[in-house]
Amino acid sequence: MCRLLAYKGPSLPVDDLLYKPEYSLINQSYQAREMAEPLNGDGFGLGWYAPEVDPEPAVFTSVSPAWNNRNLRYMAPKLASPCICAHVRAASEGDVAENNCHPFHYKNLLMMHNGGVHAFGRIKRALVDTLSDEHYLWIRGQTDSEHLFALFLDHYTRAARTGVEAMVDALQATFRDLQALKASYGLPHGSALNMVVTDGEAMVGSRYIDEPDATPYSLHHTEGSRYVCDDSGCGMRKAPTHEQAVLIASEPLTREAEHWKSVPPNHFVLVDRVNRIAFRPVETGRAA
Amino acid sequence: MCRLLAYKGPSLPVDDLLYKPEYSLINQSYQAREMAEPLNGDGFGLGWYAPEVDPEPAVFTSVSPAWNNRNLRYMAPKLASPCICAHVRAASEGDVAENNCHPFHYKNLLMMHNGGVHAFGRIKRALVDTLSDEHYLWIRGQTDSEHLFALFLDHYTRAARTGVEAMVDALQATFRDLQALKASYGLPHGSALNMVVTDGEAMVGSRYIDEPDATPYSLHHTEGSRYVCDDSGCGMRKAPTHEQAVLIASEPLTREAEHWKSVPPNHFVLVDRVNRIAFRPVETGRAA
Amino acid sequence: MCRLLAYKGPSLPVDDLLYKPEYSLINQSYQAREMAEPLNGDGFGLGWYAPEVDPEPAVFTSVSPAWNNRNLRYMAPKLASPCICAHVRAASEGDVAENNCHPFHYKNLLMMHNGGVHAFGRIKRALVDTLSDEHYLWIRGQTDSEHLFALFLDHYTRAARTGVEAMVDALQATFRDLQALKASYGLPHGSALNMVVTDGEAMVGSRYIDEPDATPYSLHHTEGSRYVCDDSGCGMRKAPTHEQAVLIASEPLTREAEHWKSVPPNHFVLVDRVNRIAFRPVETGRAA
Amino acid sequence: MCRLLAYKGPSLPVDDLLYKPEYSLINQSYQAREMAEPLNGDGFGLGWYAPEVDPEPAVFTSVSPAWNNRNLRYMAPKLASPCICAHVRAASEGDVAENNCHPFHYKNLLMMHNGGVHAFGRIKRALVDTLSDEHYLWIRGQTDSEHLFALFLDHYTRAARTGVEAMVDALQATFRDLQALKASYGLPHGSALNMVVTDGEAMVGSRYIDEPDATPYSLHHTEGSRYVCDDSGCGMRKAPTHEQAVLIASEPLTREAEHWKSVPPNHFVLVDRVNRIAFRPVETGRAA
Repeated sequence: MCRLLAYKGPSLPVDDLLYKPEYSLINQSYQAREMAEPLNGDGFGLGWYAPEVDPEPAVFTSVSPAWNNRNLRYMAPKLASPCICAHVRAASEGDVAENNCHPFHYKNLLMMHNGGVHAFGRIKRALVDTLSDEHYLWIRGQTDSEHLFALFLDHYTRAARTGVEAMVDALQATFRDLQALKASYGLPHGSALNMVVTDGEAMVGSRYIDEPDATPYSLHHTEGSRYVCDDSGCGMRKAPTHEQAVLIASEPLTREAEHWKSVPPNHFVLVDRVNRIAFRPVETGRAA
Repeated sequence: MCRLLAYKGPSLPVDDLLYKPEYSLINQSYQAREMAEPLNGDGFGLGWYAPEVDPEPAVFTSVSPAWNNRNLRYMAPKLASPCICAHVRAASEGDVAENNCHPFHYKNLLMMHNGGVHAFGRIKRALVDTLSDEHYLWIRGQTDSEHLFALFLDHYTRAARTGVEAMVDALQATFRDLQALKASYGLPHGSALNMVVTDGEAMVGSRYIDEPDATPYSLHHTEGSRYVCDDSGCGMRKAPTHEQAVLIASEPLTREAEHWKSVPPNHFVLVDRVNRIAFRPVETGRAA
Repeated sequence: MCRLLAYKGPSLPVDDLLYKPEYSLINQSYQAREMAEPLNGDGFGLGWYAPEVDPEPAVFTSVSPAWNNRNLRYMAPKLASPCICAHVRAASEGDVAENNCHPFHYKNLLMMHNGGVHAFGRIKRALVDTLSDEHYLWIRGQTDSEHLFALFLDHYTRAARTGVEAMVDALQATFRDLQALKASYGLPHGSALNMVVTDGEAMVGSRYIDEPDATPYSLHHTEGSRYVCDDSGCGMRKAPTHEQAVLIASEPLTREAEHWKSVPPNHFVLVDRVNRIAFRPVETGRAA
Repeated sequence: MCRLLAYKGPSLPVDDLLYKPEYSLINQSYQAREMAEPLNGDGFGLGWYAPEVDPEPAVFTSVSPAWNNRNLRYMAPKLASPCICAHVRAASEGDVAENNCHPFHYKNLLMMHNGGVHAFGRIKRALVDTLSDEHYLWIRGQTDSEHLFALFLDHYTRAARTGVEAMVDALQATFRDLQALKASYGLPHGSALNMVVTDGEAMVGSRYIDEPDATPYSLHHTEGSRYVCDDSGCGMRKAPTHEQAVLIASEPLTREAEHWKSVPPNHFVLVDRVNRIAFRPVETGRAA
């Protein structure tokens, strides 16, 4: 069912997130702890921003398992970035193919998803029919995730705003559309929608399941002035500084359990340009 | 722009088509002779039937170039089959991804394409809208080829017949639909539509370009009682026997130029269950 | 630590061993039951003989996990063979690279290994020094397994005999050499040497650890007149026929536990041309 | 026979070398101009230094052709580095495997090779016998190139010096050893030895063939204050600055032919820490 992480803060070697922590994402690729099935070996992806050279991110994906990818192992310590997304996949909807690996990329945006829309095939066509040509043609693979991102792109682009508020509104609209589609086609099952979207400057995550009384998949966050890996291990450090760092992850990466908190169920988590964190409930439209 | 071959006849090791001939398909993957650009290094695919164990074909594809694929080299001499399709790709529409490699497979059918629909994106959505849910959801990749195959499948399935006539009718209907779509959307350019479809028992090919006065891409055929590779080289042998073998290929595989003939421009080539060959003009609808 | 299987008997689709059984090798690639670590996701290999077309086997290997390889899934039901070897790897010595995947192949021989020589690097050079030029130059990868196979090839070739006795003698000689090398260089640890060698006609396996009082890794066998997968599941069937089939595997593939027996610890298992099974103790040289 | 490039100078996006120039290395992967065979499609490699985070380089290699690698295309504009090595391979000695891709890496060193030792197998074992255990065990693949690098590492490490002089001396010693080995074993053919070694701070190249009267493979260089890609194209710019940049390549990357000079035949090219260039003849030992 996949594991993901997203970091924003002072520039950091990718290694410090992917390999060094005790429960690193690489570790989660073969022994995730908060899933029934511990294996996420159906490919992986890494996206990162190098704002000094390009506003668009780089993406490195592979269908090989993250734990034995030599290129990833080589590059991780040399790639330093202030905004990093990474994802290990357990394939559900869609083949094990590079085009189905997260993060998905569109212009300056990256998107990752942990979860799934059960019986997605039944609404896929109707969803596609609502898409603009541009975002329809942009789709390369088969996943529900990529299609939801295309729907997000429609909302985000139409709004003609950028920034964290624009992103969260577009994600909210995406969820609303999905719910409407599911209702029209009588899809009863809950869809697990833990997502992260970023433009490299701001970031929005969601911990959401569109089924009353169900618990969404896990999503954790930790903040501090700086995330560091040193002799005492990896983790957030707090210091009297204006620096701020945020790390969001399906599972805590580090032993310091007290540093990690759960994103509240059915909430968005917002990270602004200066890495301040905030939450907003997902509007389910059910109360209405 | 890809090179393809299709064989039907007495069971043959794949090796005899892919590696042994002087101008084998492997050779064509890096030095095709009847194309401006000799390189077809963006993946390949092999499909073959083992009718004694399964009516559905096996497919082996890879994004690596055919010329250096160790698995293909290993397997080619051990895979013997009475119906073999192979394709080397020069990517145009669609990423270099396994899901975009030919032959495409649906149940007991295989399909390959050499050519392309220029500006396919402009009609992709309209084409998709005409598809049945089943064949829409079956699509895994991005190519014009796979989408045309889905359209073929709609026609072929609706006809509720099988055999060479049913296949050629469905291919004809596919071309007609494509032309109508292109007309609606004002796509002026000729589409090169050299295709092969087979169900393992019969086979249909096309050498077609939907532009008056243009010459379709090359497509050749050779027939005999048996195709053999021996000390004198590879080629069709004629013998007083009831056996019959047919080989269709973008380029002649063997030196024996006199054994190869061009498929007439804008014609279908039909191969029936007992490997007799026939031709039928493609109806362009232009005269009407 | 890898899982392997080897079959000899009436021709069988590879599918019946790799996918259909309840505890198939594919299943063992992510949830092996007789290992502390259930994951064997560092590539795989399949070798099979098609004696009607070629005395040398085909080999198909990949560094991708067996459980998500589309080519393997496609080919398994169409490849029927009377002699099949398959291996899923958990990398220890040697990178995750195609050249380190089992089965290793030399002319008409295949070899697979489950186990390892701890601290192999300390004797690698001395082992290599003993090799003939031919088998030294034949080595392509880094594994202890491939180097031991090269040593086997030296013994087997020098003996200038073929057949099951020649193979078991060469394997015995290989183990003896390894023990001598380990003694010279003071390697104390037990080496786990569960191996299978076949020339497509006869087959030899070993269940061996060169440490007194230690238990070798698991290796099981089952025999019958025919191995079949039908509505009641997969398994060996006994019938009054001259046919004979043997299956050797790190772990039982099927539920029918009573059909499987352990290869006695520190024994070779021999399968002759007509698929009769026999055992011979590994001579450890320790009693001498 | 491979194409290579090596850059040292002000930090530069890899894109400016690999994709942007008219005759970029990607272009050379399918249409090299200074080789009989224009195709270098058997994998590629990129090595680069990020001295601000790590003295050891990152390496990204793949057996896929450089021209269609999505990860490379994605990463090239975001990876900026003051020391970049890249190589596209046409396989001769050694399989098409990641372990046979250049650049080879050892600690803070990278090495690439264009050329080959004809009949390398005849001296491989003798060469290996001279190696220290450490560098023998470091070898992962099969190429003559990697073995020569291991020999280089022995000389370089023994010298216990670093810097450009130490590197050129070690490369000279490597060539001398190779010549002696070839003489002992009666290998008559010329070995083409265009190589580049760097520690990220200094760099040594060679343009050499160990056969009297033969012309070594092409190797070009260009220097300036800064290499830039702008609207007028890519190339070295000269400006009154202390900055200095050097680019070495099998073939000129840019149209500005007058900016490129050949490395003199049978010479080393030396690039020191401040990117000053110098030449030194290869001592052939033949005059002695």
